[in-house]
Amino acid sequence: MTPEPVRIAVGPKTSELLGRAITRAGATLAELDDARALVWDGGPAGFPQRLPVGIEWVQLFSAGVEEWFDTDVFERHPDIVFTSAAGAFARSVAEHALAMLLAGVRHLPEQLRARAWRQAEFFPRIGTLREATVAVIGTGGIGGELIDLLAPLGARVIAVNRSGRPISHSAVIETVPAQRLSEIWPRTDHVVVAAPATPDTRHLIGKNELSQLKPTSWVINIARGSLIDTDALVDALRDGTIGGAGLDVTEPEPLPDGHPLWDLPNAIVTPHDSNPPQLRTVAFAEHVADNVARFVAGRELNARIDVAAGY
Amino acid sequence: MTPEPVRIAVGPKTSELLGRAITRAGATLAELDDARALVWDGGPAGFPQRLPVGIEWVQLFSAGVEEWFDTDVFERHPDIVFTSAAGAFARSVAEHALAMLLAGVRHLPEQLRARAWRQAEFFPRIGTLREATVAVIGTGGIGGELIDLLAPLGARVIAVNRSGRPISHSAVIETVPAQRLSEIWPRTDHVVVAAPATPDTRHLIGKNELSQLKPTSWVINIARGSLIDTDALVDALRDGTIGGAGLDVTEPEPLPDGHPLWDLPNAIVTPHDSNPPQLRTVAFAEHVADNVARFVAGRELNARIDVAAGY
Repeated sequence: MTPEPVRIAVGPKTSELLGRAITRAGATLAELDDARALVWDGGPAGFPQRLPVGIEWVQLFSAGVEEWFDTDVFERHPDIVFTSAAGAFARSVAEHALAMLLAGVRHLPEQLRARAWRQAEFFPRIGTLREATVAVIGTGGIGGELIDLLAPLGARVIAVNRSGRPISHSAVIETVPAQRLSEIWPRTDHVVVAAPATPDTRHLIGKNELSQLKPTSWVINIARGSLIDTDALVDALRDGTIGGAGLDVTEPEPLPDGHPLWDLPNAIVTPHDSNPPQLRTVAFAEHVADNVARFVAGRELNARIDVAAGY
Repeated sequence: MTPEPVRIAVGPKTSELLGRAITRAGATLAELDDARALVWDGGPAGFPQRLPVGIEWVQLFSAGVEEWFDTDVFERHPDIVFTSAAGAFARSVAEHALAMLLAGVRHLPEQLRARAWRQAEFFPRIGTLREATVAVIGTGGIGGELIDLLAPLGARVIAVNRSGRPISHSAVIETVPAQRLSEIWPRTDHVVVAAPATPDTRHLIGKNELSQLKPTSWVINIARGSLIDTDALVDALRDGTIGGAGLDVTEPEPLPDGHPLWDLPNAIVTPHDSNPPQLRTVAFAEHVADNVARFVAGRELNARIDVAAGY
């Protein structure tokens, strides 16, 4: 007798890609009332007010789940396990972070503006990630992927995470717990912010932190705009306290027309496009296939949301 | 009885860094007339007309040695082994190549010009190196280092080298011999030129090759300007036949004021600064230390110049 197949629903509407991912992982597609899990390919609007009692697990389509915490979806379903898409989009976002960091270190923004062969002027400004110290704040999916990308470049990573549990990686020279974050600023060449947005991480980088960095330091934010005090960053960029900033997220977001960041020559602003839809769909389907296979096998799910911690 | 130390001269003048590299490698510094090898920390101008008969090996300070082939230094010293600095600067140049390629794929040039939040417009233009095919033409020092950098990004490398001898690397899906180069153009997403400048490689990329690439393809040249037909490249960039070009070297070089490449929005031109002096000195000393240790031990030297092949 073969075991009953695990039934999984997809909402708000089904897609062929997700359907294939689910069946490939050994489950079958089902209506919500008949399912043990729900893969939700949308935002909070339209999410069922009360899920059927048979639902044990819900997979959400989003890496950052603040907007879900603005609803009462988790409170309404205390017995259901929710997973985010954290990690699914990590590779694309880490690639974007590296693109901005390398562009900064290699002085590409100014070189792109040049209309003449300014070799003697640019020579001393060309930096390298080789032997450079890069603080990676947040060692979840994105931070972890980024460390893999930095390793062959010869960068030395200071990893910062909540627990301080050492990250075992050839490129990591030290893991610092978040409560000792204040120690890293004078010791690092560059900073990449890859931590979740929580009340604790709001304005994690402000005037005081920026003042301890180097005139060649680049600050990259591919997490959430709220982690950096924008006004302090604008001042540091204007004054040359730091080398530059690469921002895929901003506060406010969208960044309004006429905001000073648009005109600063040492700021790279990309409009939260590190994880564009055409790359996202495929990555989410891979994530779903992995988690469905785990669910079918009764193993621990990836990216389980910690409702108490708020992420 | 300890063996006689290996005596090595440095010219045109000594530097502390090179002196330390030589002694660290187990040799001693000597005057030219008393030495078995010469480390030449300069260009062809001022190179000795006739080296003492005791000299067996000369280490030159340059990765590309065309300017030395424009002299008769090699003919004048047929019994001496010459080594270049090929490989010494490979890491810095490979890092620069990656910076330009990622900037292109992530659409940074246009995003840097933006003065408003153009997310919907930029979304579809954001590419990724994940699962992208990158042809690396030339698998010497720079090409080899670049393959190491591309691997964790998930790129699939088509390696092109003279012999076609397979490059064993997890990221390399195929090694193509140079005489079959014409096969790669329709099959690759991006191209990085890292081959030496020889009569054979002149205008390796021209109108015909560019026409077979994709509108999203980036062409990166960190080797020598002569490898690309600049006029054909300008046409392809203007017409959008390809996505863009990242050029650290140009033909002519320096690129003159008013050249169309300066104004093309999809061209990144850096003035041959992928290997700036402050990064070069240290890398050359490391290269010298390695080669001196090899010379002392009687092992094969790195980057031996093949006078017949012209590189």
